[in-house]
Amino acid sequence: MNISHIEHLGIAVKSLDEAIPYYEQVLGFKCYAIEEVADQKVKTAFFKVGQTKIELLEPTSEESAVAKFIEKRGEGIHHIAFATDGVAAALAEVEAKGVRLIDKAPRKGAEGLNIAFLHPKSTLGVLTELCEKPE
Amino acid sequence: MNISHIEHLGIAVKSLDEAIPYYEQVLGFKCYAIEEVADQKVKTAFFKVGQTKIELLEPTSEESAVAKFIEKRGEGIHHIAFATDGVAAALAEVEAKGVRLIDKAPRKGAEGLNIAFLHPKSTLGVLTELCEKPE
Repeated sequence: MNISHIEHLGIAVKSLDEAIPYYEQVLGFKCYAIEEVADQKVKTAFFKVGQTKIELLEPTSEESAVAKFIEKRGEGIHHIAFATDGVAAALAEVEAKGVRLIDKAPRKGAEGLNIAFLHPKSTLGVLTELCEKPE
Repeated sequence: MNISHIEHLGIAVKSLDEAIPYYEQVLGFKCYAIEEVADQKVKTAFFKVGQTKIELLEPTSEESAVAKFIEKRGEGIHHIAFATDGVAAALAEVEAKGVRLIDKAPRKGAEGLNIAFLHPKSTLGVLTELCEKPE
């Protein structure tokens, strides 16, 4: 697997309306997009920080995995997403090395990326996303 | 405050000996340094991923903040560190905006950087480090 950089960091927040002013006014970033990802039951806000994006995640349903994360652990860093040159091949490779997959095949994530998650039980507690730009 | 990129991500692990093989053999990164930071009671291992470093943190004492983090939440992402052009000025700026500081003044961190932490109660649950290369 070839990982070039950290594509984004997912950060769970209760409310984008409360969180965006902190990221803009205190840290000085600029929110350049807000997108709802119905599949994951979240509304996301994006900021660019060098090579990496910060993706704030507000749950849109109590059934959202992000809502459960916040309920259990409070707001905070939810996952790390690595940019790879091919998610399907990377999944096969890490599965062969004993990593448990959440997604057996790539699916569509925010910003049109192909994404898949690895299970934190296999990644030393770090919910890990692999992603690639679609062809 | 001017943040250019994410300098590193700190990830709490129980054992570097167990964690380094995952980062090297599964994710394909290369550990380029191991350093003990006595001040923070941790042993750290560094990997480069594009612009950003991954810094694994193994507690060297039960009194370490990282040991307490692992006891409470398990292994996982511990903090995010932003590269700034001046930590002292950034601390003054964010404090004036109501952010609670853990460090009132910069101190020495791993790799000789000047660093300071902001309190996660003021940063929406994200333990946040500001850092700069020394002059």
